Amino acid sequence: MKRKGFKRKVSVQTIQRLPRYYQYISYLRKQGIRFVSSLKLSLQTYVEATQVRKDLTSIGHTGKPKVGYEIDQLMNTIEEFLGLRTIEDAVLIGVGHLGTAIVQYAGFANYGLRIKAVFDADPMKIGTHIQGRVIQDVSTVGQYVRDHKIPIGIMTLPAPGAQEVTDMLVKSGVNAIWNFAPINLFVPDHVIIKNENLAFGLAILKHRLKSLAERDSS
Amino acid sequence: MKRKGFKRKVSVQTIQRLPRYYQYISYLRKQGIRFVSSLKLSLQTYVEATQVRKDLTSIGHTGKPKVGYEIDQLMNTIEEFLGLRTIEDAVLIGVGHLGTAIVQYAGFANYGLRIKAVFDADPMKIGTHIQGRVIQDVSTVGQYVRDHKIPIGIMTLPAPGAQEVTDMLVKSGVNAIWNFAPINLFVPDHVIIKNENLAFGLAILKHRLKSLAERDSS
Repeated sequence: MKRKGFKRKVSVQTIQRLPRYYQYISYLRKQGIRFVSSLKLSLQTYVEATQVRKDLTSIGHTGKPKVGYEIDQLMNTIEEFLGLRTIEDAVLIGVGHLGTAIVQYAGFANYGLRIKAVFDADPMKIGTHIQGRVIQDVSTVGQYVRDHKIPIGIMTLPAPGAQEVTDMLVKSGVNAIWNFAPINLFVPDHVIIKNENLAFGLAILKHRLKSLAERDSS
Repeated sequence: MKRKGFKRKVSVQTIQRLPRYYQYISYLRKQGIRFVSSLKLSLQTYVEATQVRKDLTSIGHTGKPKVGYEIDQLMNTIEEFLGLRTIEDAVLIGVGHLGTAIVQYAGFANYGLRIKAVFDADPMKIGTHIQGRVIQDVSTVGQYVRDHKIPIGIMTLPAPGAQEVTDMLVKSGVNAIWNFAPINLFVPDHVIIKNENLAFGLAILKHRLKSLAERDSS
């Protein structure tokens, strides 16, 4: 069941779990499955079943007794809540291996991201093509963002220079920076920043390995 | 001040914030700075200052009045708590752009990860080199893991085949899977799995952009 207009403060933790549910139910839908239980969602996403139910209730979605959640409806609710259906344009700066992996990853289209143009500082790369896009000179990214009213900048460049490019993007009017450069970038309050650092996941993994070793030795 | 032997249940949320503090204080130490305040940590990591203090207290670290946290000591505490000093060996499977980016990322060494060997299924790649490592045939990864007692498998291969390779790694004795393939992988209870999905960060970013747009239009 979906309750329309249901509003409630949704926690950051819930928001962070929603994409995990979404990934799993997308997979189920592709297999032609129509319903999913909170227990099954729990087992697949490593979240307690009671927490799964709380999370989905908090975005206005409740399951039906015995049959569980209707997958189509649940996908709609999550897509709407997270804003995945609005397609937003982005520029990507830094066409190294990580940048290339991101440009090539078709899955982002499902999350409403369109990488309109890509930029790099390397004269050897500028003018060459990647996935149908010509690599442009990073010194022109500000102009591009202004001309095309691009809201998102994806930073896949090395740490040196990343702040400078960020400043240029912010001055040119982006609303959000998705940062993969391994440094803290400064943006004004009105700009959203989402920092990604591959090493953070590693640190959490290391901690769990350490806990496992301590448990086994005690 | 560091209290020795201080034990307390530390929340998952705290553990997830520690790498962010660690990244920032590592940066400060490189600049020769010796102390940091909770306020400065707060501003740089987008965590409330009271939460910063709680987090650091929970791992047994308290600041000195007026001067703040001693960076060397704080780094030690976090490294010890997260287990970053123990160097763990890993194999990486899937030498595409993302896999290459991960092999090339020198930063992982600071987190105690050593990628010992890399594997791929593509006959065109097998036998070629990447960062001083020869790319080996994925069909031999199980034997390699057994022979070298490798605890971590890094999955940077496409979704099809990822579960099969995971099963092979688990059977060969890995303790942990660090998964970048865009699917849910199944592992037995005694194996740690850390799923990474680049789209998850995007979903959170999209939600924040949507909230921003709603605020501006109301």
